[in-house]
Amino acid sequence: MKIGTIRTGTGTAPVVVGEHDVTVIESFDDVGTLLASGPGWRDLADNAGGPTIPLAELEPSQWAPVIPRPSKIICVGLNYRNHILEMGRELPAYPTLFTKYPETLIGPFDPIRWSSHSTHLDWEAELAVVMGWDAEIVGYTIMNDVTLRDFQYHTTQWLPGKNFAGTTPLGPYLTTAFTHGRISTTVNGELMQDSVTSDLVFSPAELVTYISRFLPLAPGDVIATGTPGGVGHARKPPVYLRPGDVVQTEIDGLGSLRNVVGS
Amino acid sequence: MKIGTIRTGTGTAPVVVGEHDVTVIESFDDVGTLLASGPGWRDLADNAGGPTIPLAELEPSQWAPVIPRPSKIICVGLNYRNHILEMGRELPAYPTLFTKYPETLIGPFDPIRWSSHSTHLDWEAELAVVMGWDAEIVGYTIMNDVTLRDFQYHTTQWLPGKNFAGTTPLGPYLTTAFTHGRISTTVNGELMQDSVTSDLVFSPAELVTYISRFLPLAPGDVIATGTPGGVGHARKPPVYLRPGDVVQTEIDGLGSLRNVVGS
Repeated sequence: MKIGTIRTGTGTAPVVVGEHDVTVIESFDDVGTLLASGPGWRDLADNAGGPTIPLAELEPSQWAPVIPRPSKIICVGLNYRNHILEMGRELPAYPTLFTKYPETLIGPFDPIRWSSHSTHLDWEAELAVVMGWDAEIVGYTIMNDVTLRDFQYHTTQWLPGKNFAGTTPLGPYLTTAFTHGRISTTVNGELMQDSVTSDLVFSPAELVTYISRFLPLAPGDVIATGTPGGVGHARKPPVYLRPGDVVQTEIDGLGSLRNVVGS
Repeated sequence: MKIGTIRTGTGTAPVVVGEHDVTVIESFDDVGTLLASGPGWRDLADNAGGPTIPLAELEPSQWAPVIPRPSKIICVGLNYRNHILEMGRELPAYPTLFTKYPETLIGPFDPIRWSSHSTHLDWEAELAVVMGWDAEIVGYTIMNDVTLRDFQYHTTQWLPGKNFAGTTPLGPYLTTAFTHGRISTTVNGELMQDSVTSDLVFSPAELVTYISRFLPLAPGDVIATGTPGGVGHARKPPVYLRPGDVVQTEIDGLGSLRNVVGS
């Protein structure tokens, strides 16, 4: 099953995403509030009875972040085996965790906000895990963990560079069944990242176990599991995004994000 | 003016804290929702008309975290001049920022939750700034930025050690007028931290300016401005908190937090 969040005339609504259309799941604002309603959210989605809209009639700008306001977005750094080894580092014993605040999120096809404070705008395609009740993983989606590299490295802690408002697409929808797939990024059509999610050092289940030692995970919380090699900052010479650039991040089976850098 | 959040029979409520009693500000759940109601929150507090309770009749356990669910708690590391210089480091050009999630918060006199996953429980007395509308600082309070040192240093990013649920007292109340004062911590009556908030490298206003470059600050958001020297982990030999220990953190003019480590 695929569920997404669309922007309506009056707000947002969760939808079941079919092959040719979407059907509104009534009485909820978005996928986050649907998941938070209880373990019965699957039945509600299975029996969605709201308006049906053909996919062809949905504008890209009508897709909202699949979870617009997660209570937590926990991101993982350094989690692709090949990338760590090619950098000459040892595989880590613990996952490297940092946060994104919900104000960073944008829809899967929204423009990435350009800031006058930084020109070091970079991409990071990531498999994102969405939590349900009782630390259950209920689905998977894509996050482009857009990062401002200069602000990331102002100090040892990455928070500023990871938290520019309006930079981080999440979606296009949540898919409940996923094992592994190719993960890739293109910038203006040029392939920049190309890996497989099976290369993760810490699996989604291992990440949930580690985090749950100290912090309860709530329905709608998002864990972004890290990015493979090929980011702009690590290229020689480095490549950063500029206004007008088109970034596409894709995971086989989960769809793709397509975002133009704003001006 | 001092405003706090107390636990009532049915939930929580914001109160104006007077010399001898507190008066409930009606129609709000806590200081956070009061601040979020708009810039008119001061008038609402000035005209508080709910029940009045003598301070002597309030149990310590009735005091809730002054902001129970901030949308953001942004913490600062390495921000006391003397401590940085005595460690042989240079003064930083940018503030070191990391997050705490709201699930970490406890009331000003609540027990600190003991975890079976770590015995490296440490204290960090901090001046905390509370935000209002339009990036305005509306008040000051105290946070004990309790930290699990082993989890803090699992990787380069401090998130896990800073985010054990139920460990972090915030309060006892918000004070609107504050310039500087002594900041101290005692453990079982022994003085462990003793400094002045005027020693901050980055002032509250400078922190707000830096953060606002990338992320909007919302009413009720909390910025914890860093801790002075004297934490347990830096002592020789290191000292960590054990079940039954009593930690008291105090800032002149803002009151004090008193917490027993749970078992």
